[in-house]
Amino acid sequence: MGYSDLDWKAINTIRLLAVDATLKANSGHPGAPMGMAPVAHVLFNKFMTFNPKNPDYANRDRFVLSNGHGCMLQYALLHLFGYALSLDDLKNFRQVDSITPGHPEAHDTPGIEVTTGPLGQGFANAVGLAIGQAHTAAVFNKPGYELSNNHTYVFFGDGCAMEGVASEAASTAGHLQLGNLIAIYDDNHISIDGDTKCAFTEDVLKRFEAYGWHTQHVTDGDHDLDGIEAAIQKAKDVKDKPSVIKLTTTIGFGSKLQGTGGVHGNPLKADDAKQVKEKFGFNPEESFVVPQEVYDLYNKHASEGAAAEQAWNDLFKKYQAEHKELGADLARRLAKKLPEGWAKKLPVYKPTDSAQASRKLSEKVLEDIHEVLPELLSGSADLTGSNNTRWKNAVDFQPPSTKIGEWSGRYLRYGVREHSMGAIMNGLAAYGTVIPAGGTFLNFVSYAAGAVRLSALSHQRVIWVATHDSIGLGEDGPTHQPIETLAHFRALPNCQVWRPADGNETSAAYYSALTSTGTPSVLALTRQNLPQLENSTIENGIKGGYVAVEAENADLTIVSTGSEVAIAIEAIKVLKDQHNLTTRVVSLPCWEVFDAQPKEYQLKVFPDGIPTLSVEVMSTLGWSKYSHEQFGLNRFGASGPYLEVYKKFEFTPEGIAKRGKLTVDFYKGLKPRSPVNRAFQQLI
Amino acid sequence: MGYSDLDWKAINTIRLLAVDATLKANSGHPGAPMGMAPVAHVLFNKFMTFNPKNPDYANRDRFVLSNGHGCMLQYALLHLFGYALSLDDLKNFRQVDSITPGHPEAHDTPGIEVTTGPLGQGFANAVGLAIGQAHTAAVFNKPGYELSNNHTYVFFGDGCAMEGVASEAASTAGHLQLGNLIAIYDDNHISIDGDTKCAFTEDVLKRFEAYGWHTQHVTDGDHDLDGIEAAIQKAKDVKDKPSVIKLTTTIGFGSKLQGTGGVHGNPLKADDAKQVKEKFGFNPEESFVVPQEVYDLYNKHASEGAAAEQAWNDLFKKYQAEHKELGADLARRLAKKLPEGWAKKLPVYKPTDSAQASRKLSEKVLEDIHEVLPELLSGSADLTGSNNTRWKNAVDFQPPSTKIGEWSGRYLRYGVREHSMGAIMNGLAAYGTVIPAGGTFLNFVSYAAGAVRLSALSHQRVIWVATHDSIGLGEDGPTHQPIETLAHFRALPNCQVWRPADGNETSAAYYSALTSTGTPSVLALTRQNLPQLENSTIENGIKGGYVAVEAENADLTIVSTGSEVAIAIEAIKVLKDQHNLTTRVVSLPCWEVFDAQPKEYQLKVFPDGIPTLSVEVMSTLGWSKYSHEQFGLNRFGASGPYLEVYKKFEFTPEGIAKRGKLTVDFYKGLKPRSPVNRAFQQLI
Repeated sequence: MGYSDLDWKAINTIRLLAVDATLKANSGHPGAPMGMAPVAHVLFNKFMTFNPKNPDYANRDRFVLSNGHGCMLQYALLHLFGYALSLDDLKNFRQVDSITPGHPEAHDTPGIEVTTGPLGQGFANAVGLAIGQAHTAAVFNKPGYELSNNHTYVFFGDGCAMEGVASEAASTAGHLQLGNLIAIYDDNHISIDGDTKCAFTEDVLKRFEAYGWHTQHVTDGDHDLDGIEAAIQKAKDVKDKPSVIKLTTTIGFGSKLQGTGGVHGNPLKADDAKQVKEKFGFNPEESFVVPQEVYDLYNKHASEGAAAEQAWNDLFKKYQAEHKELGADLARRLAKKLPEGWAKKLPVYKPTDSAQASRKLSEKVLEDIHEVLPELLSGSADLTGSNNTRWKNAVDFQPPSTKIGEWSGRYLRYGVREHSMGAIMNGLAAYGTVIPAGGTFLNFVSYAAGAVRLSALSHQRVIWVATHDSIGLGEDGPTHQPIETLAHFRALPNCQVWRPADGNETSAAYYSALTSTGTPSVLALTRQNLPQLENSTIENGIKGGYVAVEAENADLTIVSTGSEVAIAIEAIKVLKDQHNLTTRVVSLPCWEVFDAQPKEYQLKVFPDGIPTLSVEVMSTLGWSKYSHEQFGLNRFGASGPYLEVYKKFEFTPEGIAKRGKLTVDFYKGLKPRSPVNRAFQQLI
Repeated sequence: MGYSDLDWKAINTIRLLAVDATLKANSGHPGAPMGMAPVAHVLFNKFMTFNPKNPDYANRDRFVLSNGHGCMLQYALLHLFGYALSLDDLKNFRQVDSITPGHPEAHDTPGIEVTTGPLGQGFANAVGLAIGQAHTAAVFNKPGYELSNNHTYVFFGDGCAMEGVASEAASTAGHLQLGNLIAIYDDNHISIDGDTKCAFTEDVLKRFEAYGWHTQHVTDGDHDLDGIEAAIQKAKDVKDKPSVIKLTTTIGFGSKLQGTGGVHGNPLKADDAKQVKEKFGFNPEESFVVPQEVYDLYNKHASEGAAAEQAWNDLFKKYQAEHKELGADLARRLAKKLPEGWAKKLPVYKPTDSAQASRKLSEKVLEDIHEVLPELLSGSADLTGSNNTRWKNAVDFQPPSTKIGEWSGRYLRYGVREHSMGAIMNGLAAYGTVIPAGGTFLNFVSYAAGAVRLSALSHQRVIWVATHDSIGLGEDGPTHQPIETLAHFRALPNCQVWRPADGNETSAAYYSALTSTGTPSVLALTRQNLPQLENSTIENGIKGGYVAVEAENADLTIVSTGSEVAIAIEAIKVLKDQHNLTTRVVSLPCWEVFDAQPKEYQLKVFPDGIPTLSVEVMSTLGWSKYSHEQFGLNRFGASGPYLEVYKKFEFTPEGIAKRGKLTVDFYKGLKPRSPVNRAFQQLI
């Protein structure tokens, strides 16, 4: 309360930086920053604790701009509060190699928590950040040591409100009673198609009430700073529900086009920019102007944040002395380090061990490592018994009042909400103290494609336990049998797609997924049993590919993954018996990891001069990278017992041998070059 | 009202068929059929009009089982009412090549409207079916001729209710005031993880109220047939809102495990099956039993449906006489035929015509063909001005009360809801009288991956106008720049991915998309301008690939798509001037269509003996199918003006020439075989 002209000067400075930056870039979205500057000012300067000199301060309040196209709002704030984001960076808005790209990118810009822009994602990320906080507080807070008590604030617009991923996450947040989550809905009635009345006439607050949220409406978000402050304070006071504040604002406030779609996604015209500056008491001929008193105002708040961090550091030092084990654990997690020797807990198999489904092998990994890896937070999108994601004595992450779990619980019931599971996992990973793993059928990771993409782009260590990975799931049929899914995620940069063939490869997949701190992983796992292979070791597996069966003077290399490797090995005998051909078999559980091996190693696995056939029971797309000929399934599958489905499509030793023979014949006398030999390197 | 023992016998027959079929298959979901048999009986026998002898009767009521795993409910009904689905088909439930697969597939089973199972999809399909009806009625109904007045009914469970795609569609349906849509929510409190209280505690009816739906609750769905009937009747009486009826049921009603997760996804134990049969007055030793009086009951209703169709046919005959043009139009649409000569309206370009963005070229197609193709229903997920999907004088599809459109309008404002747009388009296509086209950025088609997959699997002609198709979108940056997207949809069976290089190719893409009645298409279109190419014609384009620039004794073939084709053509001169190399260029706008050309033609485009380099500014994955070496972008893009982004990644004539030279050097003296030459055919 007690806002002065200086506050309005600060608010208008933010607005004009957005006007100037979009004008200079001749691109971008001034409307949302101009409309949301008042609430941003109140929130950042009155409520949020953060230290611009250390954007990673563990107990900082988190802020997410889910309507990421309004990022000039956030860039302006980061600059004004003193983050490492200069006025020149603002002038480089939307330029190649700047730290101020067209949408906020967490990996590249200090102070950005999560990468947003694709609508709805940020909202769901915020739910993840809030879960991360609630869990961290439950695990680490002790009497006298409230180490974790930050809030998560998220701004979202009509676009986010329409997206299903945000609806899913809102339902989850309501169920989980996340009192530490405060969402501010920019109710400006404008989306790209113009007035929202053309497509979006629902009662948003009533919907959030239905989810179990606390709701408020501030009707004059353009002027009522006191009302905004009171609403945020009230939201903070509500501890047992997430809060949403509907804030009615005028998009592009101050522009001649304010309140219209014209100001949403295009810079203001030069004369409009000038009149806005005059209206706000700024010199219309100047650009990128920040009054010193605005810097001073924000610096004051920033230094309070720095002091808060100092106090926290002191508290944490005492905590580490008093609660040695927990203190060391938290310090380790914040440093993104895994516990010494954890990998020794990974299960190891001998060829004589029994055949098992890789979803069961994955369960064994989780069972064996969860105690030594307390940051691992597993879960499933309502397929717990099928994904095998829950270790035996797991406790659910639930509000204690439900009596079915605890805030310290490490198993999350995401509901049948794959997309928000992915986006919530991104938020969890971004929080910094947990490693999220979430289960669904491989086919339904596609529902979450938007979130997986952002895991990869923003370097989040997120693990998908993607079971029922092929037609091998059998009876559920083509609606559930992935064909295109692995090609999809293999084409996604910075995403590890694993399809382990047995127990040791499954352990290798987890080893790689857990140690790759800046990369998400999709573990494609079978429903059906797989035998333990002869040459499979964790050491071989973590190279992404290795020779499963070597042979001198081989006529043919077969390269395969997952459930087909053992069938390919059976085909060796058929090829010898029926065609007198000598075959070697390569297992290639992870392309991305194999591609990172030295060329020399790659050529040992795929030597020159031997025709190579790939075998994988889904789309062949991409396989010519590692093979001359491809045996796959470029059609939809079939519903039936899995062995019959495999037989129908000839994924049998005989079916493979037949194609192996055709491959050898086709290359007779040609001594083809190894598929990994290339004319030039790809840009990375 | 006035239900008798016979009704319960029919209900229990349905339940036991589900018990027997899942038991015989040793797989499947008996719980939902057992719980929903009462409402299914009331709905099908009292309310729905359909003719089992002609599942395509145009004005039939539509039924969608969104909780598709309960498909034995639907299969049992189809059998009992006399569709071409025998008792043997039920006995073949979930067997290879049966017409009773694990989830309902529209393409293969008579009486199934849409393919469901992936949760949430069916609900959104139903919204599309309802839109299709409202539009058809507005266009064709005349005084005395209510040709279209069918209802759409959809069953959905907790899983669907949790999925974002259904939330999006529900919001759209509420906005559109679809009084012809009646949804029945199976409130059985059980999902795969057990009691829904572990993840789903929102107030579903309140949420639907917020969307603008009419809501009711029938508390005893297991017994209260009168209550069910009254609720459906009431829902039918509400004409200006969609209706949802929450029906509290007991999953697996009758089983010893009723009301638990144990009966959701597993067959009953043999002894449990026996006790259910006894409880329901059936012989516990017999299976697949249908009392004759149950057949008789349902046959009676089926014959009423046949009579209704006969009456409709008579009415339509009169209509065709009285409203010649409209009558012929409707008959043509129902036959899935396009109007004679429509394709002559497709725009044709000369090389001297101005450079244009392919999104603009696409707009021109829509502008030119929309009058001659009245079944075309365009739209966008809130990117109308960017996708250029709206022809100049388009009228919005809106409830007339909104005063911003008409039911007969042919432009749909989907809101920022890509996933439900895809699923609604599937419903629209399935309705049979419209061809839906929907716009978004290519990158955000991924949000709808689940729906696109079902378009392909269920053979729906759905057109995605996917603009901003690469890093060429520039400033919006990596969050919006597709890298993996084309690989993803190219790997999807039965999906045409088009990336036209100029105007004629854009027309070809539309020609192919519109004439491929059983295949969805994704048209990847640029934001930036493209020149008109020399050899580009519609005739060449519809082959999927052709020689854009031929050269005798070529040293190199460059194959490319879309915006890179013109740059590749510019590279010819650089290769000649700097390296004295002769280069030919192939444009390959659609792989799927090219793959269907005769081998002879394919070899003309990609002759043996010439090293081939592919150039496409996104993931190289899959390109080795048509090239020996690949130039692409296996990393995320960058935010900046598009020419600078292209330059950063070397997608310039010089950058291409450099890699062309390396390719030629690498294959010096090798005369490589054409990439389209293969050792064996893929299974299709």
